[in-house]
Amino acid sequence: MGDVIEPRQVAENLKELWSPRIIAEVDDSFVKVAKIKGEFPWHSHEMEDELFMVLDGEMSIELEDSRVKLTTGDLYVVPKGTAHRPSAAEECLILLFEKKSTRHTGDIVQENTRSVEQQRVQE
Amino acid sequence: MGDVIEPRQVAENLKELWSPRIIAEVDDSFVKVAKIKGEFPWHSHEMEDELFMVLDGEMSIELEDSRVKLTTGDLYVVPKGTAHRPSAAEECLILLFEKKSTRHTGDIVQENTRSVEQQRVQE
Repeated sequence: MGDVIEPRQVAENLKELWSPRIIAEVDDSFVKVAKIKGEFPWHSHEMEDELFMVLDGEMSIELEDSRVKLTTGDLYVVPKGTAHRPSAAEECLILLFEKKSTRHTGDIVQENTRSVEQQRVQE
Repeated sequence: MGDVIEPRQVAENLKELWSPRIIAEVDDSFVKVAKIKGEFPWHSHEMEDELFMVLDGEMSIELEDSRVKLTTGDLYVVPKGTAHRPSAAEECLILLFEKKSTRHTGDIVQENTRSVEQQRVQE
């Protein structure tokens, strides 16, 4: 059997910003946590929806023609194929739920793209 | 675009115990919330893992040879094929993440089995 996980605590302990950590698997999906601050690049995932849930703090998700604001406890699903740019003015802890096939920077590999192996690494 | 969802608030407003409400879809999975108190029957899902996350309160999940206790913010994944019995001494609000194909009472249809359509109904 697996362990009980404290997502907020795992996210709190992350040292690197915008570097998701896999905390659980549910069939063909990963549950991840991340610590974010500042702006992430615009990206989209052509094939997969992406769920954001704020564990502690406030974040925004800019979409092509709108912007959503999330505070602690809020949940939002970015539909597949939708360009989005997450950002947070202050440090914010989030939980992500997405298919194992989802690359967190979307369809473009860039400097801060982390492989699944890197996301599994324990600090 | 979808709306920002407040899972804890939706769960709080539920009138019926052990009756999951679908709050979002992520590809072929549902995010659900439920208000629970007392014991749910033993069941298992042969083909699907099931994620539990406590939004507010305390719950236990009895497994074949162990028992896990979850408090607010904790997350646990019951692996597919594992018999489990969720319970809560006091009212507890939870979030569930599972494949759309998962029947919440497992492989046996029983009195408190709710169809997907019932789980979508707005109160």
